Order: sequence, then C-alpha cells, then structure tokens
Amino acid sequence: MEVITKIDEMRTRVLSVKDRKRSIGFVPTMGALHNGHLSLMRRAREENDELVVSIYLNPTQFDKNDDFENYPRQLDKDIEIIRNENADAVFTPCTEEMYPDGFCTHVTQDKLTDALCGRVRPGHFNGVTTIVTKLFNIIEPDRAYFGQKDYQQCAVIKRLVTDMNMDVDIQVCPTVREEDGLAFSSRNKRLNPEERQNALCIYGSLLKAGDMFASDIRETKEIIEEMISIIKKTKHTKIDYISIVNANTLEDLSSINGKALVAVAIWIGNTRLIDNIILE
Amino acid sequence: MEVITKIDEMRTRVLSVKDRKRSIGFVPTMGALHNGHLSLMRRAREENDELVVSIYLNPTQFDKNDDFENYPRQLDKDIEIIRNENADAVFTPCTEEMYPDGFCTHVTQDKLTDALCGRVRPGHFNGVTTIVTKLFNIIEPDRAYFGQKDYQQCAVIKRLVTDMNMDVDIQVCPTVREEDGLAFSSRNKRLNPEERQNALCIYGSLLKAGDMFASDIRETKEIIEEMISIIKKTKHTKIDYISIVNANTLEDLSSINGKALVAVAIWIGNTRLIDNIILE
Repeated sequence: MEVITKIDEMRTRVLSVKDRKRSIGFVPTMGALHNGHLSLMRRAREENDELVVSIYLNPTQFDKNDDFENYPRQLDKDIEIIRNENADAVFTPCTEEMYPDGFCTHVTQDKLTDALCGRVRPGHFNGVTTIVTKLFNIIEPDRAYFGQKDYQQCAVIKRLVTDMNMDVDIQVCPTVREEDGLAFSSRNKRLNPEERQNALCIYGSLLKAGDMFASDIRETKEIIEEMISIIKKTKHTKIDYISIVNANTLEDLSSINGKALVAVAIWIGNTRLIDNIILE
Repeated sequence: MEVITKIDEMRTRVLSVKDRKRSIGFVPTMGALHNGHLSLMRRAREENDELVVSIYLNPTQFDKNDDFENYPRQLDKDIEIIRNENADAVFTPCTEEMYPDGFCTHVTQDKLTDALCGRVRPGHFNGVTTIVTKLFNIIEPDRAYFGQKDYQQCAVIKRLVTDMNMDVDIQVCPTVREEDGLAFSSRNKRLNPEERQNALCIYGSLLKAGDMFASDIRETKEIIEEMISIIKKTKHTKIDYISIVNANTLEDLSSINGKALVAVAIWIGNTRLIDNIILE
C-alpha cells in the first residue's frame, strides 16, 4: 500500500490507474477510524479494482475551534487499519498542500444546507463541499462511499455531484452500531464511561420514534415530544435538534407521509453526537 | 461536426474520445462569435486532437437583466462558423439542462473577484466560476482557451483550477483587435456607427498609458488622469473604472514596479466595453 502525502504524487498514481482502465473506489475520512469506516472500505474494496482512502482532518468544516482541536487523531494507527483492509493507497495531505497561500475558491450550497446540522453549524457544509470537490478532482473515483449516519452530508454531496456534473457514483452505506445501539463515531472516543452510558438515549429516542411510527402515529409533534422526554430523562445531555423531515428535501414535516428522516443532534457532556433513522 | 445539446450525449462522446487517448481542446463561448473566438479555436485546433466549442449564454453571470436580454444571439450562424474551423463537436445546452430544478450549488471566489469588474458587477464572477466548473466536468478538456481581453476572468479561472485541483491547462490568448484598435467583443454588435467611432477612445486611452510608461512615468495617478481626460473628451461615454493593478493579485498600484495591468471598463452609450494592456 502506498502512503501518499503530495497531490502531485497522488495524481501520478491516479492517471496510471486510469490508464490501465482500473476502477477506483474512494473512502474519504477524517481519520480516527472505526467500524463504520471499515464497512465503507470493505464495500469499496469489493466493488472496485483499486481502493483509495484519504485521511484529512479538514479544518474548514469545523465551525468550532475546540471541536477541531479535540477531534481524535491517530494517523499511524489509521494507516495500519487501512493497510489491513488491503487498500491500494492512502492519501494524507497536510493543510499547506490542500489550502496553499492565496487559496480563495469555495463550493457552497443552499437549500439542503439550511436544515438540521446546517442550521446550527454555520459554514460546516461549505467546508465539506469544498474539500470533497478537491478530493474528487484529485482522486477521480468511479465510486465514493459515505455512511448514512451523516445523512445530510450524503444528501449534500449527492446534490453537489449532480449540480456540478461530476462523474462519481455516490454510495451511501448503512449506519454501523455498537452492540448496544450507539452509532460508531470518531467523537465517541471522547466520552467517559458515564457519558458513554448516557449516549444510549440517542438511539433509544430513535427506536421510540420507530415504534410510534409502527403504531401508526404520524404527527411529528407527538413523536418529537416523546423523543425529547427520553433525552431529558438522561443526565448531562442537551438537545441540539430533534427533527423529522422529508428525506429528500430535508424540509420539516408536520405529519409523515412518504419517506421521512428522523434526525437528532445531542450534546453528551461536551461532545455533540448525531444519529438518524429513516421511516417509510 | 456533432452538434450536441444534452449533457449525457456530450459525456458519451467525451468518454469515447478519452478512451482513444485523444486530447481535447475546449473553447467555451457565449456565442455571437467574432475574430477573437476564431483565434482561440485555431490555437485549440492546432494543439489538440479534438476541438470542442460550447455556446451557452449563461444567465447567472449577468448582473443586469437587460444586458442578458440584449446580448447578441446568432446560434445558427455561430454553428456554421465553428464548423468552418473544423471543430469536432459543439455543445449548446439549454438552461433547463444546465440548471435543472433544485439546482443549489455554487462555486465562489474572493480576493481576485473583489477588484475591477468584480467590484461593479456583483455576482458576475460567481456565475463564471460555477458554469466553468460545470463545463470542465462535462467536457474534461486537456486545455481550455480564453482571451486576454477578459484578463480578470482568466485570472479567476486559473485560480479556480489551482484551488479545486482541476486537471485542465488554461491557455490565455492575446486580445484580437479590429484594424483601428477596438478589441473584438460580442457587445460591439450593439454599437451604432457613431458609438463605434467613439469606442476608439478605449484603446486610445490604453495606448496613452503605454506611451507614458515607455517615457518612464510610473505614478499610476498621473497615467490614470491622462486616460480619464481622453475618455471624457469623447461624447456619450461614461467611465465605469480605469485601474492600474498588480497583474497577479489585481490589487491597485500607486506606482508601477513589476508586471502591471491597465484595465478599463467604459460605457459607450448603453454598451459597456472592457479592454486592457499589460505593462512590464
């Protein structure tokens, strides 16, 4: 496996791979890899001739400095994990390489980015669309893999690819959970044992929404109130948002008819975690 | 020569050309072709296996509705002109094809777009960077050709390509002028005979700047004052801007040392024309 830090070297490799007409599966990550990333890499490994994984903690998608500073970092360990998944290359550029002096171009999006996390994390998705555009142009993947836990990010990137006429197939893979239901997230590493236990209320609230939907309850206000009460019963938590939205437009629903997304962002102590389920 | 109106068809052609390892030279235009465009097409024809020309009057880069509505249109004539230049394909999509319902992604740039035309045409360059990104993704050119008359546009697009890691070589070709010095522009077609005569003051003012520079005058204020007086002596003209800037950063200069751009935008009656020269 090649470990590549320079854009030029990555381009040389990509052009050689393209020349041999081999397909490229790409898993962009910010490192601190967990089972969710593993599922993306395995799927990409299966479906493509070459597997390229990037590790780049993109500063421009962090709306809070302390979140960026406290984000878990474990580059050497991550490279070993990727090696074990039989990747062909890992791309780990530094920030001077990605945002050199004079950098001044940005990819922005409205509509889909006005909802959910976009409402509470200003600038976050513009950071995402900009770095994903750059990575796609550098890696030229046939397919790129993202996790459904970041549902809104997936929707934004699918729209980016459609709007900008990028020739990349976006594959969204199911959320991977711990045995007790907590969605894998790099930020879980920040939780202390008590917080780790408290974090179960997140999936618990989503399961409750699923149960209510199964019992033919369609009024979102009624479902959200139940979810709020589950979170509020749990110590040291704070609700950032609990929303039920149209799964395509991400617009708030008053009652569910058609495919709906139940999405939550909850502070567990000082760590903000997100999760979601689809109801249809 | 193929005339293609659908993105899918264009992509099929591009992928087939790439498959045969033929290089693509691309000339994006808004139609109303003139000798300036011809020079771009001829250079692209020489330097590449395939020549693709686009004709698309991009509404999002017009800051004034009446400028968009009054922009000259001559699609059939343009297609014949391009056929005579031995192009392989002309791409003429409609706006529903380029900006379908739900379109919400934009490519924006700061710094370079704050100067010159960017200052007086808000949103113009964001329209340019967005459409150029789309066209580059659809056509995947090896080389794309632009005219120096649109110097700021060339600078913005070079920066776009660098910042977004696009694998396109941007070629800037010299401004082509009528025998009397007026730079070719699609908007010249709007001038009546008197205005056409008055428009000579534009190049006249640039020549004056060149003469003063040749006479070792370096203070930009002194040069600009002379240029203003030439324009003001001409009837039915209005100065939009006359600027002397660093040719790389486009920042205003108080005195010239190093490569400088003298750039002007002048209203001739109801038609706004731009032109520039480099001093070094």
